[in-house]
Amino acid sequence: MPLDPLPESLLPFLSPYLPSDHPDRPFVTLTYAQSLDARIAAEPGVQTKLSHSETKTMTHYLRSKHDAILVGVGTALADDPKLNCRFPGSTTTTARIRPVIVDPRRRWKYAGSTLRKLVESGDALAPIVVVDASTSVGTHGGDEDVRLIREGGGELLAARILDDHGSRRDNSWEVILALLHAYGIKSVMVEGGAMVINELLCSSSAIVDSLIVTVAPVFLGQRGVLVSPREQVELRNVDWWKGIVDSVMCARIK
Amino acid sequence: MPLDPLPESLLPFLSPYLPSDHPDRPFVTLTYAQSLDARIAAEPGVQTKLSHSETKTMTHYLRSKHDAILVGVGTALADDPKLNCRFPGSTTTTARIRPVIVDPRRRWKYAGSTLRKLVESGDALAPIVVVDASTSVGTHGGDEDVRLIREGGGELLAARILDDHGSRRDNSWEVILALLHAYGIKSVMVEGGAMVINELLCSSSAIVDSLIVTVAPVFLGQRGVLVSPREQVELRNVDWWKGIVDSVMCARIK
Ligand SMILES: NC(=O)c1ccc[n+]([C@@H]2O[C@H](COP(=O)([O-])OP(=O)(O)OC[C@H]3O[C@@H](n4cnc5c(N)ncnc54)[C@H](OP(=O)(O)O)[C@@H]3O)[C@@H](O)[C@H]2O)c1
Ligand SMILES: NC(=O)c1ccc[n+]([C@@H]2O[C@H](COP(=O)([O-])OP(=O)(O)OC[C@H]3O[C@@H](n4cnc5c(N)ncnc54)[C@H](OP(=O)(O)O)[C@@H]3O)[C@@H](O)[C@H]2O)c1
Repeated sequence: MPLDPLPESLLPFLSPYLPSDHPDRPFVTLTYAQSLDARIAAEPGVQTKLSHSETKTMTHYLRSKHDAILVGVGTALADDPKLNCRFPGSTTTTARIRPVIVDPRRRWKYAGSTLRKLVESGDALAPIVVVDASTSVGTHGGDEDVRLIREGGGELLAARILDDHGSRRDNSWEVILALLHAYGIKSVMVEGGAMVINELLCSSSAIVDSLIVTVAPVFLGQRGVLVSPREQVELRNVDWWKGIVDSVMCARIK
Repeated sequence: MPLDPLPESLLPFLSPYLPSDHPDRPFVTLTYAQSLDARIAAEPGVQTKLSHSETKTMTHYLRSKHDAILVGVGTALADDPKLNCRFPGSTTTTARIRPVIVDPRRRWKYAGSTLRKLVESGDALAPIVVVDASTSVGTHGGDEDVRLIREGGGELLAARILDDHGSRRDNSWEVILALLHAYGIKSVMVEGGAMVINELLCSSSAIVDSLIVTVAPVFLGQRGVLVSPREQVELRNVDWWKGIVDSVMCARIK
C-alpha cells in the first residue's frame, strides 16, 4: 500500500530535530508511538497499530533521513518488522536504510523473516545483527542463518555487551553505537521496543540527540506494554505538532 | 498568586466539550494532567506540579463552567487541595464551585484542611463529603468535623456505595451522581486521583461526557502514580490543542 502524503507542516516542525554530524558517534533519534496511557503495544508480543496514516508517513520520512534503524530483539521477534523506508523520493527506489537488530544471544532468525523477503525483492537492506562477543556464532560464520545475512549484504557484528553472568553491561549502548559508527553509520533511528526505549531515555543526552513521540488518543489499558523510564527524565527544546488524530512531540533530553 | 491570562485559542477549542444539561444526571467532565509516561504524580502521596501556568489557568476556566469539582479521598489526603475556582470573572468574587470528596470511610478531616481556611476567608465553598451509608457518622451529626462542614455551608451525604464486605459496589458512580443531582448539581468536573480516573475511563460514555487531558512533556518514571484503565478505551471527537509547553486533548469516550 502506498503511503499517504506527508503533511507539509511536518517539515518545518521536524527540521530542528533531524540528524547532524557528530565526529565520533552516530546521531541518535529515539522515536515511537504510544497511547495516552504510555503503552506501545496492546499486549506483550502483539503488534498494535497505534498511529494514524499521516504519522506513519512521518516515520518513513524520518527513516529516509537516517543511515540505520535499530530495534531490540524483543521487537524483531514480536513484530517481524519490515524495517525499510518507503518514503517516496528516498535516494533510490530501494530503501537505503540499514536495519540493526540488537540480539546479544542470537534469538532472532533471518531465514523465515519478512525482512528477508523484502531484501530479496530489493525493498530493504539486509540487517546488521549485533550479538554479544560470547555468542559463538558471532565469531565464526559456520551457521546457515549468518551465511544468508551475509549473502544479502548484511553482517553479524560481535561486541562485549553482556557481562560474565549474561547481564547487560552498563556501557552496552556506547559499545553498540561505536561499533555502528566504525561500520560507517552516522545516524541511527531507534524505534523500540519498550526495554530499549526505557533504557535510552535514562541515558541522558550523551546518547539520545532527538526524541520524537507520537501520542495516539486511545487507552490500551493495563495489559499493554508500558514505556516509562526507571527515573524521572526532563526534556528541553520541546515542540508539539497536532495531526488529524495524533499529536507528535519533539524534544531533546536534558 | 494571580492566574496567567487564558490563551484565547483555548476558548473555541474547549467550547464543544463544555457542560450541557442532562435531564436526569449531572454532566461529567473527567480532567487531569499527566506526564508522557501517564503519571499524575511523581510518587504516591506527593503532589506534583505537572502543567504549565497557561494550562493551570485552563483548569480554573473549566472549573468556572461546572457546579462541582469532585476528587477521591486519596487525593484529598495526599494533596490537601484547594478545590476552588480562581478564574477571574467567575460569577462572584467568591469561588462558586462546590467541592465534592468521595470518602466512603470518612478518612479525610475538614478541620485542619487548606479547604477550611479558604472557606473561612470566603475563597471556596464548603465541601460535600460523600460517605458510605454504613459509616455511622454519616447518619447523625454528632461529630465535631461534620458540625464544622455544615456550619461552613457544606454537607455530608450518605449513600450505599460499599457492599457488606467494604468493597465498592459496581453502581457506586451512578449512586454518587444521582445524589449530587438531587442536591442540585448539574455538572461535575472530576479531577482525580488515579483510582477515580481509572474507574471512570472504563465506565463508558454513560457516565463521562467529556475527557480533557493535559500532557506535560516530562517522564515521571516508574515510581510515579499511573493512569491506565483496566481495559482498552477508545475515544471519539478527538481534538488537540498545542500550548507553549503542554498539549491538551479533548475527547468523548466511545
Ligand atoms: N509502538 C511502537 O512504536 C513500538 C515500536 C517498537 C516495538 N514496539 C513493541 O515493543 C514490544 C517489544 O519490546 P521489548 O521490551 O519486549 O523488546 P525490545 O526492547 O525490542 O528488545 C529487548 C531485548 O533486546 C536485547 N537488547 C536490547 N538492547 C540491548 C543492549 N543495549 N544490550 C544487550 N541487549 C540488548 C535484549 O535481548 P536479550 O533478552 O536476548 O538479552 C533485550 O531483552 C513489542 O510488543 C512491540 O510491538 C512498539
Ligand atoms: N495530576 C493530576 O491531575 C492529579 C489530580 C488529582 C490527583 N492526583 C494524584 O492522584 C493521587 C491520588 O490518587 P489515588 O488513586 O490514591 O486516590 P483517589 O482516586 O483520589 O481516591 C481513591 C479513594 O476514594 C474513594 N472512592 C473514590 N471513588 C469511590 C467510589 N465510586 N466508591 C467508593 N469509594 C470511592 C475510595 O476510598 P477508600 O479507600 O476509603 O475506600 C478510594 O480508595 C495523588 O498522588 C494525587 O497527587 C493527580
